[in-house]
Amino acid sequence: MRSSVHIRPTIDADRLHRWLEAAASFGRTAAGGVCRLAASREDGAARDWLRARLEEEGFRVALDAIGNMFGILDLAGPEAPCVLTGSHLDSQPTGGRYDGAYGVIGGLEAALAVRRLAATGHGRPTRNLVVVNWTNEEGARFAPSTLGSAVFAGFVDLDAALSSVDADGVTLGKALAAIGYQGADVLPQTLAAYVELHIEQGPELERHGRTIGVVEGSWGTVKYVVEITGEAAHTGPTPMAKRRDALLPAAELILFGRRLSDETGGALLSSVGRLDIEPNSTNVVAGRVRLFVEFRDIDPGRLAAACAAFEAKARDLATPAVSVALTRTVNRPASAFDAALRDLIEDAARDCAYPTLRLHTIAGHDAIPLKARCPSGMIFVPSAGGISHNEAEFTAPKDLEAGVEVLAAVLWRLVQG
Amino acid sequence: MRSSVHIRPTIDADRLHRWLEAAASFGRTAAGGVCRLAASREDGAARDWLRARLEEEGFRVALDAIGNMFGILDLAGPEAPCVLTGSHLDSQPTGGRYDGAYGVIGGLEAALAVRRLAATGHGRPTRNLVVVNWTNEEGARFAPSTLGSAVFAGFVDLDAALSSVDADGVTLGKALAAIGYQGADVLPQTLAAYVELHIEQGPELERHGRTIGVVEGSWGTVKYVVEITGEAAHTGPTPMAKRRDALLPAAELILFGRRLSDETGGALLSSVGRLDIEPNSTNVVAGRVRLFVEFRDIDPGRLAAACAAFEAKARDLATPAVSVALTRTVNRPASAFDAALRDLIEDAARDCAYPTLRLHTIAGHDAIPLKARCPSGMIFVPSAGGISHNEAEFTAPKDLEAGVEVLAAVLWRLVQG
Repeated sequence: MRSSVHIRPTIDADRLHRWLEAAASFGRTAAGGVCRLAASREDGAARDWLRARLEEEGFRVALDAIGNMFGILDLAGPEAPCVLTGSHLDSQPTGGRYDGAYGVIGGLEAALAVRRLAATGHGRPTRNLVVVNWTNEEGARFAPSTLGSAVFAGFVDLDAALSSVDADGVTLGKALAAIGYQGADVLPQTLAAYVELHIEQGPELERHGRTIGVVEGSWGTVKYVVEITGEAAHTGPTPMAKRRDALLPAAELILFGRRLSDETGGALLSSVGRLDIEPNSTNVVAGRVRLFVEFRDIDPGRLAAACAAFEAKARDLATPAVSVALTRTVNRPASAFDAALRDLIEDAARDCAYPTLRLHTIAGHDAIPLKARCPSGMIFVPSAGGISHNEAEFTAPKDLEAGVEVLAAVLWRLVQG
Repeated sequence: MRSSVHIRPTIDADRLHRWLEAAASFGRTAAGGVCRLAASREDGAARDWLRARLEEEGFRVALDAIGNMFGILDLAGPEAPCVLTGSHLDSQPTGGRYDGAYGVIGGLEAALAVRRLAATGHGRPTRNLVVVNWTNEEGARFAPSTLGSAVFAGFVDLDAALSSVDADGVTLGKALAAIGYQGADVLPQTLAAYVELHIEQGPELERHGRTIGVVEGSWGTVKYVVEITGEAAHTGPTPMAKRRDALLPAAELILFGRRLSDETGGALLSSVGRLDIEPNSTNVVAGRVRLFVEFRDIDPGRLAAACAAFEAKARDLATPAVSVALTRTVNRPASAFDAALRDLIEDAARDCAYPTLRLHTIAGHDAIPLKARCPSGMIFVPSAGGISHNEAEFTAPKDLEAGVEVLAAVLWRLVQG
């Protein structure tokens, strides 16, 4: 076996870039990014494009009820366990072109490289390969994030996920049906491993001058939705003492969340990225505000302390005139990826002669819920300036190629068991 | 003349309520209010309904380029000066049914009562009557408020007003064209007076047990749009020190505006009712925020001091990472309505045996810009609990009738010169 492991699959770099370019055309923004919200028309077009590529390459495409797409490549017979790779085609409203799409298209390219090598008679695959596009990873249109993979892994009830509504009141179920991506196909059952290729979205690889990130584990994350209820009233004649302004506690909580981070010297990450305000009219006191808050930390104690302080502050801000109700929508403890898989990724990267760095992911990824189903791991490539969730997000072409080469080498080892 | 003045026009109260009910059906909300944003489909339907009523009653309907509707009733020949009455059919997103619509429909009913009395041979009208529906009084969909009347009065350039965009980027010009309400008709040129009937939107009449408010003048109002520009970034991996969060200065300014009011014991009114956040996604640091702020005061010195403090605070919050730019979109000094018209309204109300109260309007109204064109005045009727810009807004039927009776009595005097 040793010799066949050290023969590495060769990727088609031109096709990789061509495909990445093609995918970036779905929901392309004027500033060169993408707006491809989950289950939107643009997401539907990108999915159609992916399905066409998979089918013309001979993959069997299976869809599940939450819209996850599985491109199944039979290398070892229908009963063989599956090695999964993939990521997501949905994006933030002003997202970059690689966040997610790179892992899907890079996964497809790596799978094809593995098949080509196997066809030359090298190695003997005992597992099949599956390229996955997970639904609503971003959590931008429907909450929470990593929804498709969380349903697949059994963390979120299917019906609850399908009932998740966007800002216009459209359910995910309805949106998926509208683009034709609700399925009931037979899915791979025995999963050998999941490996996800992704841009880092942080500055560490660039700062250390390394090409491949071997992801050790993920930070803890807690997200809240805070519902603040006052009463709409005219901003003119309504006496100040009679106003029940829902925006005032919201502003207090935005600043308090930041203060909690400042108190740790920035070690605890905190953010409010979204506010839904009703009616959000200049001349009307806000009657209702929903505030979306998150805290992230690698240190579980520090994270728990921040959450306790935040919850206490929210309770303090409630008055008879303005109520403040808090729901914890995400509660993801810090955790490690599969140790053997991390070592295998590192070994494959060295084999390809790329310098590696062990790091953690602060962002959530589909690879995190997948840990409940099989050994799961992640490969990162550098993000210029650490910029992400921004149209200016960029990864150099050679780094994109390096990531896919390493992924192909990893998959090559994994399909041989 | 004295005798014909003291004979008063009689209104048709049943028709008044029937028409108010009919108008409330356009954009009716589940909670019994209305959502009839300026130049929306619902506004278009309400306008069509009003046009049909005017035409079947023999009014000539004229439209100007900003969509203001004029229903002209010839009582004294085409060369005679005009007495105008009216208000607006547009509403807040969760508005009440009388804010605006009452002044238009009450104006129509009062005009018909005047015509009927004139037809009996009493009095001798030397002026014509015009019922007006002003475009975008609310400022909810397009900024600023009282836009149609401000264009008519020459305060706002027509092209600038037509270029005003809503939250979806649609211009007022395009929206008006879509509902068929951009016109180029010949309008009344010589204006004798403008009288607007409106619900009080505050608690004073109710508190004092009076039926008719004689509006002395209007409070000073300053409105700002604050543009805060940072940079969108992932709320996960982006280090806190690198974040350029546009929402933090926004939160500071929301609280600072409230503090300025608190320092005056609530005499200065301040509010932030609207924030436009980009991209407004849970997982993205806000790259850009537009904050809509307003201050109102009857005391010009106190208002100026608050504005100076607010502008200084905005300057202080600007950093190299996050810019803060401030535009004063409304700068309406406190001012009085026409003294003779106030006396005439008070006298007519007493003639009708309704108890009156002299008060100021804190809210903006179309009657304020109209002061530049002719003597202008306002009649208020009570609002239950002072509630307004809220679907629960309510005025008792007998108060609605009283306001129209007084308006008819006022118009009867005015058309006789």
